[in-house]
Amino acid sequence: MRFYSVTEPVKYEGPDSTNPLAFRYYDPKRKLLGKSMAEHLRFAVCYWHTLCWPGLDPFGGETFLRPWHQAGDQMDHARRKADMMFETLRLLNVPFFTFHDLDIAPEGSSLKEFNRNVSTIASHLLKKMDETGVKLLWGTANMFSNRRFMAGAATNPDPDVFAYCAAQVKHCLDVTKELGGENYVMWGGREGYETLLNTDLKRELAQAGRFLNLVVDYKHKIGFKGPILIEPKPQEPTKHQYDYDVATVYSFLKANGLEKEVKVNIEQNHAILAGHTFEHEIALASALGIFGSIDLNRGDYQSGWDTDQFAMNVPELALALYEILKAGGLTTGGMNFDAKIRRQSIDPDDLLHAHVGSMDACARALIAAAKMIEDGRLKAEVDKRYAKWDEPKNQAMLHGKESLADIAGRVLSENIDPKPRSGRQEYLENLLNTYV
Amino acid sequence: MRFYSVTEPVKYEGPDSTNPLAFRYYDPKRKLLGKSMAEHLRFAVCYWHTLCWPGLDPFGGETFLRPWHQAGDQMDHARRKADMMFETLRLLNVPFFTFHDLDIAPEGSSLKEFNRNVSTIASHLLKKMDETGVKLLWGTANMFSNRRFMAGAATNPDPDVFAYCAAQVKHCLDVTKELGGENYVMWGGREGYETLLNTDLKRELAQAGRFLNLVVDYKHKIGFKGPILIEPKPQEPTKHQYDYDVATVYSFLKANGLEKEVKVNIEQNHAILAGHTFEHEIALASALGIFGSIDLNRGDYQSGWDTDQFAMNVPELALALYEILKAGGLTTGGMNFDAKIRRQSIDPDDLLHAHVGSMDACARALIAAAKMIEDGRLKAEVDKRYAKWDEPKNQAMLHGKESLADIAGRVLSENIDPKPRSGRQEYLENLLNTYV
Amino acid sequence: MRFYSVTEPVKYEGPDSTNPLAFRYYDPKRKLLGKSMAEHLRFAVCYWHTLCWPGLDPFGGETFLRPWHQAGDQMDHARRKADMMFETLRLLNVPFFTFHDLDIAPEGSSLKEFNRNVSTIASHLLKKMDETGVKLLWGTANMFSNRRFMAGAATNPDPDVFAYCAAQVKHCLDVTKELGGENYVMWGGREGYETLLNTDLKRELAQAGRFLNLVVDYKHKIGFKGPILIEPKPQEPTKHQYDYDVATVYSFLKANGLEKEVKVNIEQNHAILAGHTFEHEIALASALGIFGSIDLNRGDYQSGWDTDQFAMNVPELALALYEILKAGGLTTGGMNFDAKIRRQSIDPDDLLHAHVGSMDACARALIAAAKMIEDGRLKAEVDKRYAKWDEPKNQAMLHGKESLADIAGRVLSENIDPKPRSGRQEYLENLLNTYV
Amino acid sequence: MRFYSVTEPVKYEGPDSTNPLAFRYYDPKRKLLGKSMAEHLRFAVCYWHTLCWPGLDPFGGETFLRPWHQAGDQMDHARRKADMMFETLRLLNVPFFTFHDLDIAPEGSSLKEFNRNVSTIASHLLKKMDETGVKLLWGTANMFSNRRFMAGAATNPDPDVFAYCAAQVKHCLDVTKELGGENYVMWGGREGYETLLNTDLKRELAQAGRFLNLVVDYKHKIGFKGPILIEPKPQEPTKHQYDYDVATVYSFLKANGLEKEVKVNIEQNHAILAGHTFEHEIALASALGIFGSIDLNRGDYQSGWDTDQFAMNVPELALALYEILKAGGLTTGGMNFDAKIRRQSIDPDDLLHAHVGSMDACARALIAAAKMIEDGRLKAEVDKRYAKWDEPKNQAMLHGKESLADIAGRVLSENIDPKPRSGRQEYLENLLNTYV
Repeated sequence: MRFYSVTEPVKYEGPDSTNPLAFRYYDPKRKLLGKSMAEHLRFAVCYWHTLCWPGLDPFGGETFLRPWHQAGDQMDHARRKADMMFETLRLLNVPFFTFHDLDIAPEGSSLKEFNRNVSTIASHLLKKMDETGVKLLWGTANMFSNRRFMAGAATNPDPDVFAYCAAQVKHCLDVTKELGGENYVMWGGREGYETLLNTDLKRELAQAGRFLNLVVDYKHKIGFKGPILIEPKPQEPTKHQYDYDVATVYSFLKANGLEKEVKVNIEQNHAILAGHTFEHEIALASALGIFGSIDLNRGDYQSGWDTDQFAMNVPELALALYEILKAGGLTTGGMNFDAKIRRQSIDPDDLLHAHVGSMDACARALIAAAKMIEDGRLKAEVDKRYAKWDEPKNQAMLHGKESLADIAGRVLSENIDPKPRSGRQEYLENLLNTYV
Repeated sequence: MRFYSVTEPVKYEGPDSTNPLAFRYYDPKRKLLGKSMAEHLRFAVCYWHTLCWPGLDPFGGETFLRPWHQAGDQMDHARRKADMMFETLRLLNVPFFTFHDLDIAPEGSSLKEFNRNVSTIASHLLKKMDETGVKLLWGTANMFSNRRFMAGAATNPDPDVFAYCAAQVKHCLDVTKELGGENYVMWGGREGYETLLNTDLKRELAQAGRFLNLVVDYKHKIGFKGPILIEPKPQEPTKHQYDYDVATVYSFLKANGLEKEVKVNIEQNHAILAGHTFEHEIALASALGIFGSIDLNRGDYQSGWDTDQFAMNVPELALALYEILKAGGLTTGGMNFDAKIRRQSIDPDDLLHAHVGSMDACARALIAAAKMIEDGRLKAEVDKRYAKWDEPKNQAMLHGKESLADIAGRVLSENIDPKPRSGRQEYLENLLNTYV
Repeated sequence: MRFYSVTEPVKYEGPDSTNPLAFRYYDPKRKLLGKSMAEHLRFAVCYWHTLCWPGLDPFGGETFLRPWHQAGDQMDHARRKADMMFETLRLLNVPFFTFHDLDIAPEGSSLKEFNRNVSTIASHLLKKMDETGVKLLWGTANMFSNRRFMAGAATNPDPDVFAYCAAQVKHCLDVTKELGGENYVMWGGREGYETLLNTDLKRELAQAGRFLNLVVDYKHKIGFKGPILIEPKPQEPTKHQYDYDVATVYSFLKANGLEKEVKVNIEQNHAILAGHTFEHEIALASALGIFGSIDLNRGDYQSGWDTDQFAMNVPELALALYEILKAGGLTTGGMNFDAKIRRQSIDPDDLLHAHVGSMDACARALIAAAKMIEDGRLKAEVDKRYAKWDEPKNQAMLHGKESLADIAGRVLSENIDPKPRSGRQEYLENLLNTYV
Repeated sequence: MRFYSVTEPVKYEGPDSTNPLAFRYYDPKRKLLGKSMAEHLRFAVCYWHTLCWPGLDPFGGETFLRPWHQAGDQMDHARRKADMMFETLRLLNVPFFTFHDLDIAPEGSSLKEFNRNVSTIASHLLKKMDETGVKLLWGTANMFSNRRFMAGAATNPDPDVFAYCAAQVKHCLDVTKELGGENYVMWGGREGYETLLNTDLKRELAQAGRFLNLVVDYKHKIGFKGPILIEPKPQEPTKHQYDYDVATVYSFLKANGLEKEVKVNIEQNHAILAGHTFEHEIALASALGIFGSIDLNRGDYQSGWDTDQFAMNVPELALALYEILKAGGLTTGGMNFDAKIRRQSIDPDDLLHAHVGSMDACARALIAAAKMIEDGRLKAEVDKRYAKWDEPKNQAMLHGKESLADIAGRVLSENIDPKPRSGRQEYLENLLNTYV
C-alpha cells in the first residue's frame, strides 16, 4: 500500500510552474555567494513531527492514523517508519534527517531493551544512509515524554532520574556518532519547574551544570567531533524552562565554563515565545560566538504555545537568512524542519506539500538575503551609522584607554553636546522590500 | 497652599481600623524573625513616579497639574518638589527615597548647567536628610528622556552620546556618594534596539560592557561602598532591551567579568513582561549570587507594557517576600515604590492612599512570609523531595566523581528504573493559603 | 483497592485547623446575606477534568494511570468511574456534578452504541443520585475529541457532521432532562477555524445559528426547563473560536434572536485568554441579561492556553463573587470545578486537596464579598460618582428627550465646561483589601 | 524654509527602479479587475500620526521638533500644518485625508473658541481641496486627549462630559459634511474603564447607546450621506475598551438597533491586540454586513500596545486585500494610513519614505489579491469543501425544514458516520505563495 500519491522526486521547475509538487525556487545546485543552495540551506527532515506526531492536541486525539501507529509488532513498525523517512527524503531531495532516540525505536520495558531497539534501528538507518548518501544532522534523546521524566530529566529531584538520563544520553550519543551525526542536540524538555513551592532552583541548576559537563567530557572521550547544541525554549512544557532563550543559555554556559564547547540550536517558534524575534536570537548567538544550527518552523504570534507551523513568510525568512549569512552561514548546522502539518491535514501528501512549500520559501528568502549581502546597501547604512566609533579617539575610549573621569572631563571641556540622527527605519524597511 | 489634606503622619492602628489613612498591618517596630518590619522592608518613595509623572499616557496629556509642573522658575520648583518629597516621607513614615538626576533638577541648557542644578538641589536634599534622618536608597541617571538618547545611551551609534553619558553618570555617582546613597542603579533605559536593519548588535554589547566597567572602576576609585545595581527590563521602550531579565543580565556580567561587582534591582512589572514571575527572578538572582534590591509595583498581566501599579495582592507579595527572606533579606537593598497612581487619581491624597495601601499589603505579606519560614513545613516538603540527592553516592555523582559512562554502567547493572512521585502542587498551594 | 486514602468526608474545622483535609472556611450551612454558603456557591465536581483527564500534555503521555483508563471492559470502567464520582462528591460534600456524554460512557463503534452506553450509565447515575441526593448541574455533548469533529461540529464543512451532532445533542439533552439537569451546556469545542484559506466564515456562522435554534426548539418541545448555556472560549483549540467571549456570544444570540433563550457559562481561564478579567465577563453578562453559570478555575496569566488550575487566590475570587452577588447570585447556575490538577500531582489524594483548597478559597472570597455588599461603601462610592446622572435633566438627556443639536445648544449657552474628578482607584483597592 | 527635501511628486518607475522615492508597484491608473489601483486602494494620509504626533513615548519626550509644534500663534501653526498636509498629499499623489477636530485646530480656552478655530481652518482646508481635488475620507472628534475626558466621553460618570461631547461631535459632523467627507468616524477613545471598583458598566453601556443614537439621528437630520463608522479597539487606553473588536461592536449595534446605520473602520493593530487577525476582522464584518473602511498600519505582534507601524509585509497585506475584494471592495471607505514613523525617524523625508513604501507594499498586495480572485483556485478549494451543503436535503436542514429529532432520526436510520477530509492548509499556503 502506497503512502504518498507520488513516486517521482519533486523537481525544480522554475517560478512559473503551477505544479503544486514542484520547486519553483529551490534549485539545489544553483550557486549563490559561491555556494550551492543545498550547501547553504542544509535542509533536514525530522522524525518527530514528520513521522511520529499523530495529530492530537489537548482537546482531541489522533487524526493521522499512520500505518506505523497501529497495533502490531513495534519493531516492524519502526523499520517501516524508517523506510518512510528515506522515501520522504528521496521525494523531497533533502540531504539530512534528525531524530530523538524514541522517535526511531520503541521504548520496550527497560532501558536495556530500549538501547537494543535503538541500536537495531540505527543499523537499519545506517544501511539506508549508505545506500542513499543521506546524512544525519543530529540525534537527541527524548527525556520528556515518559512519565518518569514528568519532573525533569537532569534537573529531577530524584537522582535516579539523573542517572537514568546519563545512561540514555550516553547511548544516544554513541549511536549518533556511529551514524556520523554532525551535531548532538540537548533540548531541555522538562528542565524547568512549575512552582517554586516544590522546587529548589539552585540545586536544579547545579544538576543541569553537572549533566552538561558529563556530556561534554564524554563527547571528547569518544572523539565525537561535532558540537553539542542546546536548544533554547521558554514557557512550555514547564512554566519556567531553564533554557529560556539564547542569553539564558549563554549565562548557563558561562557559569559552567562551557561557552567554548556548546552552541545553540535556535528555533523560530521558541524565539518568539521568549519575546524575541528569530533574527534577534541568531544575531545574539553570533555575537556571543555560540551560533550552531536552526530548527525551522514558525509560531503563530497570537498563540501562546509552539504551533510549529511550516515557515512560509518569505520576508520574515529573508531577515533570518540575512543574519545567518552574516554569521558565516551554517557550518555543521542545518535547517531542520521542526514543523508539523496541521492536525486537519490528514492526507500523507500534505507532508510533501508542507516541506515543498517551506523549502521554496527558504530558497526565495536565501535569494533575497544573498542579494542583500551582494548589494551591500543595508550594511553600508549600518556602518555609516556607527562610523564615528571607528575614529581613533573613540576606539581608545571603547578599549579602556580613558577612565570615566577622563571622559567626563573631556565632555565638559569640549562641550560635547550630541545631536540625534534619524534611524531611518522606514527607509530601510523599504529597501528590504526591494530584495524580497 | 496645602498639597495633601492631612498634616499628621499616618499611624499604625491595627487590622480593625476603618481609617483609610491608617496602617492596619505596617507596624514599623514590630519584630519578625529578629528584625523590625522597618528593617525588613526598607521602603523607599521614588521621585520619578510619585512626584514627576504628570499623568499623561500615549493618548492624552497631563492630568495631575502638580504645582511644580507649572510655568515659573524651574529651580524654585525643584526645591518645592524636594520639600514635597520630604513631606511625603514624613506623612508615610518611610525611611528612604530614590531619584534620577533629572527628577530632582532641571536640565538647563548644557551639561555644565545640569550638573550645577543637580548639585544645588543635592545640597538642599542633604540638609533635609540631616534634619529628618531619611536616607537615600539609590540614585541613578536619566539617560533616556532627552531626545539625545533616542538611540540609546552607552549603546548609542554615536560615541559622543557614550561620552556624554559617562560624564552624566560620573556626576550622578558623585552626588549619590555625597548623599550617602546605599546603592547606585543603572537602568538600561534605551539600551536596546528597534530593528537589526539599522543596528550592530555586537558593537553595542561591547559598548555596554565598556561602560559598565568604567562605572565600576570609578566607583572603586571614589570609594563608593554600595553595589552597582542593574535593573533588568524587557520589551520597552525599545523592542529589544539588552537587560531583558535576570539571566540576561547575568550573562552580560559574566561576559564582562563583573558578576562579583554588580547586582540586580528586580521589578515585578519587568519580571512579568519578560515572561517570568517576580519570585522566579528573585530566586534566580539569589541562586546566581546577584540579588540586590526590589522595585516594587505590579503589572497588569493582561497589558503588554509597564502599568506600574501599586502592589496590593497579598498572596502574590507573600511569595515574593518568602523568596527575599530565603535569599537573606534585603541588605543594602530596599523596596522602592516604582509605582504610579492611575492617571485618573488626580487628588494629591491619592498618592498617600496608594502608598499606605501597598505598604500595608507588604506588611501583611511579610507577616505571612515570616510564618512560612518559622513554620517550616514548606521548606520541609521541598527538602524531602530532593532528599535522595543528599545521599553520598548521589553527592558524588553531582560533584563529578563519576563519568557519563560510569553512571550509565551503574544504571544498567543496577536496573535503575525511577518511579515518579507526586509534585503535590495543590497541597502546597493550600498550605500557602493557610499563611496568608 | 482503595483510591483515596481517606474514607471520612472532609469536615469544616474552622480557620485554625491545620488538618490539610479539613475545610477552614467552607461551612456549608453558614448563612450569609440570607442564604447558606452551599446555596450561594452551588459547587459541582466535573467528570472531564477530575476523572477523565489522564495527565498528558503536548510533550508527554499519561501520568495518572487511573484504574479506569487501563485495559478491560469499558462499560465496567465507566461504572467504576461513576462510583468514584459519587465517592468524590461524598468526601467533598459537593452537591452537584457535571459531565460530557463521552466522559461517562465509551464511544463504542457507532452512534447507536454510544447512545445505548450513555443511557445505561445514566441509569446507574440516576440510581446513585437518588441514593445520595446529589444533583446534576448540567450535561453537555463532547463534539470535539473524536477525529470526525476535527473541522468543527455544527460549523463543519460537511453537513453529515452537522447532522451527526444534532443526533448526539438530542440524546444528551434527553439524558440531561432524565437526570434532572438544571441546565444544558453547549461548548463550542472546535466551532471556529484555523485559516480563512479553507473557510467560509459566513456559511459557518449560519450553520451555528441554525444548530442553536434547533436545540432551543427541541428543549421547549421536550419541556426541558433549565436554560441552554453557551460557554465562551477564545484561541484554542481553533485559532479563531466563534464563541470568543461574552460580547461575541451576545452578538451571535442577537443575530439569531436567541438572547432570551440562552445564557452564558463563564470560565475564568477563557475570560483571561480573551483579554478580559473574569469579573468583567460576569458584569457584562449581567448587564446584557445573559449571566448563567460559572466554570471555576484559574489560568496562568503568562501561559497562552487553558492551564485550568484550581483557583486559590482569594482577592481575585472575591472580585468575581462580588459581581456574582450583584448580578443576583447563581440561580440555576453553579460553580463547576472545570479545573485540573497538575500532571505531576499523580496521587489520587491530590484531587481532594485541590477541591478542598479551592472550595475554601471560594468560601473566604464569599465571606469577603458578602461583607462588601453589607458594608455598602464600595457601592456608595460608585453611586456617588454617577449621581449627577440621576438628576432629571440628565435622565431626560439619557432617555432621548433631547437631540444632539439641543444638547449642543445647551452646552454652548450654559458654558458647560466639565472638570475631572479623581477616580480614586487606589483608595478603592485599599478598601477592597479591608474585606479580604 | 523647506520641510521635505523634494519638491517633485513621487512617480511610478516600475519594479526595477532603485530610486528610493519612486513607486515600484503603485501605478494609480493601472487597471485590475475593472478598476484602477487608485480606485481600489483609496489611500488617505492622516493628520494625527503624520503631522501631529511629536515623537514622544512613555519614556521620553518629543523628538521630531516640527515647526508647527514650536511656540507662536497657534492658528498660524494650524494653517502651516494644513498646508503641509496638502504638500504631503501632492508629493505622494494621495487622493484623501482624514482628521480629528483637534488635529486641525487649537483647542483654545472654550468650546466656543474651539468650534470657531475648527471652522476657520476648515475653510482653509476647503479652499485647498477645491484647488487640488483632494477629498476628505472622514472626520472625527478627539474626545480623549484633554483631561476632561480622562474618565470617558459619552460613557463618563459626569453627564456634563456627555453633553460636552454631544456638542463637540455635532460641530465636527457639521464640518465634515461641509467638507464633503465620505464617512464620519467614532473612535471610542476612552470609552471603557480601568476597574469595576469605580465603574457602573451597565449605565455606561446605556450612555454609549444613547450617544450613538443621537449622532445617527443628527446625521439624518442634516442629510449627511456617508456612513457612521465605529473603530473597534481593545486594551488601551483603558484596560476594558467597550468597542473591543468587530463582534463586540456588532453586539452593541444590535442591542441598540443600529446595525443598519453604522459600519466599522477596522485597523490591523487593533485587530491583533484583540487576538484576531486583520483578515478575520474584515471577513467577520463583511459576513455581518458592517464592513466600512480600513485604518492601515501594522502592530508588532510581540508588543502589547499599538505600535502603529507602516505596513510593509506583502504576504500579510495580500490576505487582507483578498478579503476586502471578496467583501466587494472599499466603497465609501478607504485605506487610511493610521501609522506613525518610529520616533527615531526624525527627518521629515522619513514621512515620505514610510508612505511610499507602504503604498507600494499595498499595491503589490493588491496585484496578488487580484490574481487570487482571477485565478479562482483558492475559491474553488473552499467551495469544494462545502459543496455537500449545497445539496437540497442539506439546504433544507440548514433552513429549518427539519427538527432536531427529525435529523437525529435520519442519522440513526441512515447510519450517518462522517469521515474527515484533509483541510489542506499547507497546500493552500503554498498556493498563496504563488500569488505574492
